[in-house]
Amino acid sequence: MATLDDIARELGVSKSTVSKALSGAKDVSKTMRQTVLEKAVELGYSRGVRNTTAPRIAVFVMNMEYSKPEDFGYDIVAGFRKAAEPAGYQVDIIPLDTQMQKRSRYDEYMVFGNYCGGLFLGMSLLDPWIKEFETCKSPTVLYDNHVSGNPNVTEVGVDNIEGMAGAISYLRSLGHTRIGYLSGALQSYIYQQRYQAFFRAMEKNGLTAELDMAASSYHIHECVSTHLPRLLGKGCTAVLCSSDLLAHSVMIWCSERGIRVPEDLSVLGFDDIPLCRYTHPPLSTIRQNRAELGKSAFYALSSQLNKVQLSSLLLHAELVKRASCTDVSTDFSRIRNILK
Amino acid sequence: MATLDDIARELGVSKSTVSKALSGAKDVSKTMRQTVLEKAVELGYSRGVRNTTAPRIAVFVMNMEYSKPEDFGYDIVAGFRKAAEPAGYQVDIIPLDTQMQKRSRYDEYMVFGNYCGGLFLGMSLLDPWIKEFETCKSPTVLYDNHVSGNPNVTEVGVDNIEGMAGAISYLRSLGHTRIGYLSGALQSYIYQQRYQAFFRAMEKNGLTAELDMAASSYHIHECVSTHLPRLLGKGCTAVLCSSDLLAHSVMIWCSERGIRVPEDLSVLGFDDIPLCRYTHPPLSTIRQNRAELGKSAFYALSSQLNKVQLSSLLLHAELVKRASCTDVSTDFSRIRNILK
Repeated sequence: MATLDDIARELGVSKSTVSKALSGAKDVSKTMRQTVLEKAVELGYSRGVRNTTAPRIAVFVMNMEYSKPEDFGYDIVAGFRKAAEPAGYQVDIIPLDTQMQKRSRYDEYMVFGNYCGGLFLGMSLLDPWIKEFETCKSPTVLYDNHVSGNPNVTEVGVDNIEGMAGAISYLRSLGHTRIGYLSGALQSYIYQQRYQAFFRAMEKNGLTAELDMAASSYHIHECVSTHLPRLLGKGCTAVLCSSDLLAHSVMIWCSERGIRVPEDLSVLGFDDIPLCRYTHPPLSTIRQNRAELGKSAFYALSSQLNKVQLSSLLLHAELVKRASCTDVSTDFSRIRNILK
Repeated sequence: MATLDDIARELGVSKSTVSKALSGAKDVSKTMRQTVLEKAVELGYSRGVRNTTAPRIAVFVMNMEYSKPEDFGYDIVAGFRKAAEPAGYQVDIIPLDTQMQKRSRYDEYMVFGNYCGGLFLGMSLLDPWIKEFETCKSPTVLYDNHVSGNPNVTEVGVDNIEGMAGAISYLRSLGHTRIGYLSGALQSYIYQQRYQAFFRAMEKNGLTAELDMAASSYHIHECVSTHLPRLLGKGCTAVLCSSDLLAHSVMIWCSERGIRVPEDLSVLGFDDIPLCRYTHPPLSTIRQNRAELGKSAFYALSSQLNKVQLSSLLLHAELVKRASCTDVSTDFSRIRNILK
């Protein structure tokens, strides 16, 4: 790994200039600072773990709530801090937006911010920094995103293939053979994974799933109102959703129309957000243990910092049976009447 | 987790009888010992980490050499011990065979042997215990094997999809478009993974691979002598192999016939066993960092013991460029003459 001396030598300036530039001192010109920063990134310079009293980790959060216990990101962030802080790291939570990503390159942000590593929550495949992860030099952990071929990047998440297999095999055991799948926008890596996993799991369970038994939309409302009637019209007795929020919307849509969950339609979510226990009926789902995900994300990052470079670390997915799924008992004629 | 008291209560015997049965004391009948063992397994009893001064871990080795530094398993075992022993575990290395697996159930073996967890190296999909991993209660880590749906089992290995993608993209960058794939027997989980990954990687690189561009055999010699001439006949200028030993056999076969590696045929292995540096020419390959795999296996197991149940933990695969691959320069007419 490059040192301050290496950067100084490469640029033909003094070590103190480099040091001052990197710490943002006012007596170094903006141009020099940018030059030093770019060279530091090029050489793979990182402040490292030993150089500061409390090495700093950046947790970037994009499109995800995390400040209240009922927020999806809360337990992940808390689990991460619980592991990182006793190990001597300072953890900065940084709400990220597209503008920030456009304003500076990721590696530059990390060097300039004096971060030894970063964790990303909630990135979509369209985010500007996603492309940079293919070549970035900063030790990086992506929750629910995967980048192949860069030793500095580790994916942490839940085993979606396993989760989906468990879900389908559960619905199958209840007698369902016509199972539909509703998904959020496929610009999300994890929704792509789950979408593919749905078809694999159906096949593995000896069930046929035509391509139009699955559907996706960016807007939850659109997803439900456009695709759900179609799935019901095709004789689906169960609907699996890519997220609990989507499943909850399915239940509300059904309830408003007199379609009974689970009697007429079994509904299964994904993630096990805190809301699931309070929906009507309580939502069966595939659990991501978010506190453990947070802890595992710290392990993956500290492993990177210790030069053991993981490609992926996936937790087991756990089926949580509540009350939104039951044996097939659909009253098709009633549903046909409702859909008319 | 069940205690000695639970087992005693369930069976209506004293706690000391249970304790004696589990430790193999002579004054407990064979039938009682078996009854206690089965109940212990059924209840998910494990001696646990805190009950003994040095909790014991079993490392089962099947079909893999590990005693000398040049053996494939040596660094994995050493890496595992280096992590486990300072953490206070006693590590027993247990050469495993089919008879042992038929003689006792895995969970019974673990309870009776007083092991809190097990690591498996070198299992094939035909091994009797493989089926038991789907439901076993002992914390278990499988190197290069994957079991879906059992929270007590974690896969540890290298990211084969990434490795294969790196290999094909490297050969592509050297100008190869006709690339063949030779594999060991597909009774191995990992060879199945690599086989599928080959086709995915070809597709991702915009190359066509008909099904017969890949071939597998149990015996290395048969694999080379049957399939290699066919691949050469189909115009392959590069051959990727599922293991370094297979790649080495390809090089020997070529050398005996005057086919030059890499001028006529680029050859790429998988694993980076110590031999690769000494083949003629030195073999380019996809590296598995075996010492890190061993360390990661311990992390996965200790994570299980701490109730953070990982599904899989994969290391990055690294392309190691030596001298067995080069730009396309095949003299096809010469090869056709040789193959006549």
